[in-house]
Amino acid sequence: MAVLDRIHPDLREVCKYHLGLIDEKGNPTNGRSGKMIRACVAVLAAEVVDADPAQALPAAIAIELVHNFTLLHDDILDGDELRRGCPTAWRAFSTGAAILAGDSLFAAALELLAQAPDSSLAVAELLSSSNRVIRAWANEAVLDRTPANEIAIDDYIANCAAKADLLPSAAAIAILLVGGDSTIAHGLRTVVSHASAALQIANDLEDLWGDPILVGKPGLQDLRQHKHTLPVIASLQSRHPLASELISLLTKPNLSETDLAVAARLIHDTGGREQAERAASEQLREALTALARLDISDRHRDKFREVILYAVTREPEIWIWHKPETLTGTNHGL
Amino acid sequence: MAVLDRIHPDLREVCKYHLGLIDEKGNPTNGRSGKMIRACVAVLAAEVVDADPAQALPAAIAIELVHNFTLLHDDILDGDELRRGCPTAWRAFSTGAAILAGDSLFAAALELLAQAPDSSLAVAELLSSSNRVIRAWANEAVLDRTPANEIAIDDYIANCAAKADLLPSAAAIAILLVGGDSTIAHGLRTVVSHASAALQIANDLEDLWGDPILVGKPGLQDLRQHKHTLPVIASLQSRHPLASELISLLTKPNLSETDLAVAARLIHDTGGREQAERAASEQLREALTALARLDISDRHRDKFREVILYAVTREPEIWIWHKPETLTGTNHGL
Repeated sequence: MAVLDRIHPDLREVCKYHLGLIDEKGNPTNGRSGKMIRACVAVLAAEVVDADPAQALPAAIAIELVHNFTLLHDDILDGDELRRGCPTAWRAFSTGAAILAGDSLFAAALELLAQAPDSSLAVAELLSSSNRVIRAWANEAVLDRTPANEIAIDDYIANCAAKADLLPSAAAIAILLVGGDSTIAHGLRTVVSHASAALQIANDLEDLWGDPILVGKPGLQDLRQHKHTLPVIASLQSRHPLASELISLLTKPNLSETDLAVAARLIHDTGGREQAERAASEQLREALTALARLDISDRHRDKFREVILYAVTREPEIWIWHKPETLTGTNHGL
Repeated sequence: MAVLDRIHPDLREVCKYHLGLIDEKGNPTNGRSGKMIRACVAVLAAEVVDADPAQALPAAIAIELVHNFTLLHDDILDGDELRRGCPTAWRAFSTGAAILAGDSLFAAALELLAQAPDSSLAVAELLSSSNRVIRAWANEAVLDRTPANEIAIDDYIANCAAKADLLPSAAAIAILLVGGDSTIAHGLRTVVSHASAALQIANDLEDLWGDPILVGKPGLQDLRQHKHTLPVIASLQSRHPLASELISLLTKPNLSETDLAVAARLIHDTGGREQAERAASEQLREALTALARLDISDRHRDKFREVILYAVTREPEIWIWHKPETLTGTNHGL
């Protein structure tokens, strides 16, 4: 990507490693990069408003890079050691290198978009969205130190959507850049916002019950870090007799592997898993309902549905919800 | 500052602490904040092109905040524990909090500028300048691991100017925002660029021979971290018989307080101090010469000279160069 040439060679290595383009020794990989869902949404959104998709490319690239800036810094904040099955950038290089590489991705991405013609509204929207994501991270830390039974589930879900705001704003930014219809931009934003809330809840589920090999990171990491994810909140707020057992287990500062396995079981048995799955399905259903109502061609609608389902459920083999049949009313072809 | 309201309350605390507006307990301080030189340059530049200085305020504020974003992250990278006599933000809060606070300052600053009328060129320039600063940091790490006798002094000085690029670009960004004359923008950029190179070299000198109380951080920190600052480079490249003694001293991985004091003495005695002072004076002289040639009113020229001298020499009491008389040709009133 030519945009990476704006970045100092040493930091470019860190960025390319993080993006999955090279390994730790600088050799090209054969693809462990991300799924570029945000770029897909941006390009598709431009197609929906009948613009040349190539015109949306600066938006697509900038959003992917800003997303990766957030991942680079988030991995440091969470102390995560693996991403897509490989050491995270701060582990492979250093914390300082990962901080600077993130900063440089953010600045280079914004510079790329700012230099595209008539991009000032798109730049302002990308900045607002970046701000929303950063605020949502800070808010997540607040939720993690709030007693889980005092967290309103709707607030948790709203923060999920805010954390993933770059995904819905990809549609809005691309349409602003190509000068398309703002009603469609707004409509697509709503669609993808529900989808990305579903995706975040799916991440919560994956951490507890996904296959670590397929997910690319060790399981039970959120639980180990005492994060208040939706399954945990729902479980602790259930009136199930086993909930008190989970509460006393989770007050331990260091959870052993056995504790973690028991906790995951208790979250399941107290209905935390089911409720989170229901919430994710509900968000996905809302996304698809909003999509059905949008005044766009059926061809574009079908493409958007495909991207949304791919984003939320990821590879079919790591689709881990128990009850995809709750979605049958929406005819989404699963 | 209303712009800080865009930031999550927890991160806002970190930012306000870093900016010297509150202490660690959240109580208002009575001023240990920075000198806001970049904001002064921005407002003055708007005055020079006969614009209403108030129109330049979004630029002035945005640049100060981006500068503080760089300081927040730079303190983590350098492991610096004190700034302006107080614990740095990462020490007072946490590394994660300081990373996120920096990110949020950067995004909020850019958003503020992007939302000002007709600001797209100013935003693009602020982003280019931010990129230059980040690249210069990465390049500094390259210089620190290059043998000091292989570093061309001009390359070192060019990197000093790039590291401090937000200062000269403050003039250009403000003039772009108010729609002023681009020739004057370019001219002022050249003037302030030399001044900020002088300022960076003055920082090198301050670290070795400044009064830690007045400077607000412990002395000899660069030397302790084996940084290749200009006095060190000049000393090691001198043909002075004591240079070899300095070389063998600096190869020690951990320098004791005695080692540090001896090294500072050797840098002085081998002429490293004098050469760095000469280089700083030369940059300052070039700034003032370029200023003298600019087609602006004498009143504005005088104001700019005042700001430049204040920026470079800081408070008169921490002015530490030996030879201000090398500047006498420029009639700068010192």
